[in-house]
Amino acid sequence: MQALQNDRLLRALLRQPVDTTPVWLMRQAGRYLPEYRKVREQAGSFMDLCTNPELACEVTMQPIERFPLDAAILFSDILTIPDAMGLGLYFEEGEGPRFKKPVRRAADVRALGIPDPETDLRYVMDAVRLIRRVLDNRIPLIGFAGSPWTLATYMVEGSSTKTFSRVKGMLYSEPALLHELLDTVAKSVTSYLNAQVAAGAQALMIFDTWGGVLTPRDYRDFSLQYMHKIVSGLTREAEDRKVPVILFTKGGGQWLEDMAATGADALGIDWSTDIGEARRRVGDRVALQGNLDPATLYGTAEVIRERVAGILDAFGPGPGHVFNLGHGINPDVDPVNTGVLVNAVHELSASYHG
Amino acid sequence: MQALQNDRLLRALLRQPVDTTPVWLMRQAGRYLPEYRKVREQAGSFMDLCTNPELACEVTMQPIERFPLDAAILFSDILTIPDAMGLGLYFEEGEGPRFKKPVRRAADVRALGIPDPETDLRYVMDAVRLIRRVLDNRIPLIGFAGSPWTLATYMVEGSSTKTFSRVKGMLYSEPALLHELLDTVAKSVTSYLNAQVAAGAQALMIFDTWGGVLTPRDYRDFSLQYMHKIVSGLTREAEDRKVPVILFTKGGGQWLEDMAATGADALGIDWSTDIGEARRRVGDRVALQGNLDPATLYGTAEVIRERVAGILDAFGPGPGHVFNLGHGINPDVDPVNTGVLVNAVHELSASYHG
Repeated sequence: MQALQNDRLLRALLRQPVDTTPVWLMRQAGRYLPEYRKVREQAGSFMDLCTNPELACEVTMQPIERFPLDAAILFSDILTIPDAMGLGLYFEEGEGPRFKKPVRRAADVRALGIPDPETDLRYVMDAVRLIRRVLDNRIPLIGFAGSPWTLATYMVEGSSTKTFSRVKGMLYSEPALLHELLDTVAKSVTSYLNAQVAAGAQALMIFDTWGGVLTPRDYRDFSLQYMHKIVSGLTREAEDRKVPVILFTKGGGQWLEDMAATGADALGIDWSTDIGEARRRVGDRVALQGNLDPATLYGTAEVIRERVAGILDAFGPGPGHVFNLGHGINPDVDPVNTGVLVNAVHELSASYHG
Repeated sequence: MQALQNDRLLRALLRQPVDTTPVWLMRQAGRYLPEYRKVREQAGSFMDLCTNPELACEVTMQPIERFPLDAAILFSDILTIPDAMGLGLYFEEGEGPRFKKPVRRAADVRALGIPDPETDLRYVMDAVRLIRRVLDNRIPLIGFAGSPWTLATYMVEGSSTKTFSRVKGMLYSEPALLHELLDTVAKSVTSYLNAQVAAGAQALMIFDTWGGVLTPRDYRDFSLQYMHKIVSGLTREAEDRKVPVILFTKGGGQWLEDMAATGADALGIDWSTDIGEARRRVGDRVALQGNLDPATLYGTAEVIRERVAGILDAFGPGPGHVFNLGHGINPDVDPVNTGVLVNAVHELSASYHG
């Protein structure tokens, strides 16, 4: 087997020396790219795009062809698991995801099975295999899943929500039922991520988009506990290399110490935390990924470079940093600015290494 | 002049001894109360309700008649100031606030005047005077305003937003223009809050609903700096008592030390921060207000009492705590549970005092 030509990402996630800080961007394959919008239109619905391995591979590769990114990330959605559980995922234009059959009662929770990745989610595994082939070991491929708590919010609410009334209603009035749901989802996520590794994913990321809406105590009980279980159940080596795992809780800046104790290799942080402070807090236990405000890309090239420099300087010298946005790239960003960002990271970070 | 019968709130905000922890709830006058919905329907639009001092007074008093709350808060909206500046506030049903004339260019910013509270916002001052008369010194009345950053987000976006693209676009590409806008808004807020004190407000709260979407550096430059200026410009004594000021940045749990340095008397905290940790961090510099997750009110009476006990215990003995939710009460909460909460605070907190 051919060696990975650019393994900065894997090395940085394991806090090993690199020549420059690696960079990739959450939602780097997405609506801000005109070539993405074209494929998306041809595909039909968003789910038609996700479930077609050739098209998913094509859009995964688009940002790689444009920018010298240090990683590709599987083009997919965190809600593929509940969809495979039979909840009937669909997207209303401009409304976000919805489920035809939300999970509300004990009977709904108990009816849920654990999807078999190679049959129920075969389109994802096929996409992983195809992307790996097309990537041809240039850069690593990141696989991902949503956290059990985050998936449960959509499964119980049945749609996006601002107040989390239903899922928090369950948390506060039927906590045992919510735990049962989270347990089933955690087992599904573990099996799904392991299948992605078997198919060729070289690093994994768990997106806990909604962990930050919980109290510290509930975050530990209802979100972190299940991510911890997942991390413990993951295949951590493949193709003779360690498969690093990144945990990302949006709004989780106050809980980094707890997150570092899960055994994850790296933590994603949003832009509300100073990455230098975060590094002091987590010490040498984990690498850090982040943390540019996605809105920085509305600025001039000068502002983007200045903000990149600020984050590199805050993190300081030495390994253990993967540059990224603190959240997904916004659809109305000019791709030219994305290029400015990627180049700035490589150019400005060299002096912090070696 | 008659003395205040229940001054727990004012004492707690100044870290003076109290018999039990005072409690009030953000949006305590609101849609979860059937009597509110009735008045709201009669009034016409939400702004019709805000601009009618008699009706604003009536809904302000509704929760006071139902529950043994330790404070009333003026029924109004943070967007009265930009409305008085001529931006044309209106509410689309289920869509949140909108402005007919958002602030986008330098000319828009420079055209903004500082409203005169007693003429341009007379309906607010009349409401304050009327509520004080009706309250008859039973409990204190809290006045409030939005933070300059939070008001600017609505003024620039023209509506609610998830990505803050326009206002952050201005922050990253035209920071000097945004500073000019924030300066005008800060002067307007200072004058508005001082007029509320002159009209009878006995404590003040600044709502920085959107400060938490900024980076730590931008929070200090674009939000906290202007709240600091406001605090420095406020009338801090009226009717021979100190007028305490509360700063509340939703999502500001990581910046409490900076907030405490503004000279505010108290900080509001949302539920993502452990109030015991927060107290250790701010020491004796400020009182703390919070921090029950509003969704707790979906739980049983037992769960509500247990969570109230948890927060009282985390804060610990001694003065300086005002019990509140970490955000506004949700419209779909059962008012019975609100009563359970208020009673639990008074009953369970007595042992931490005296």
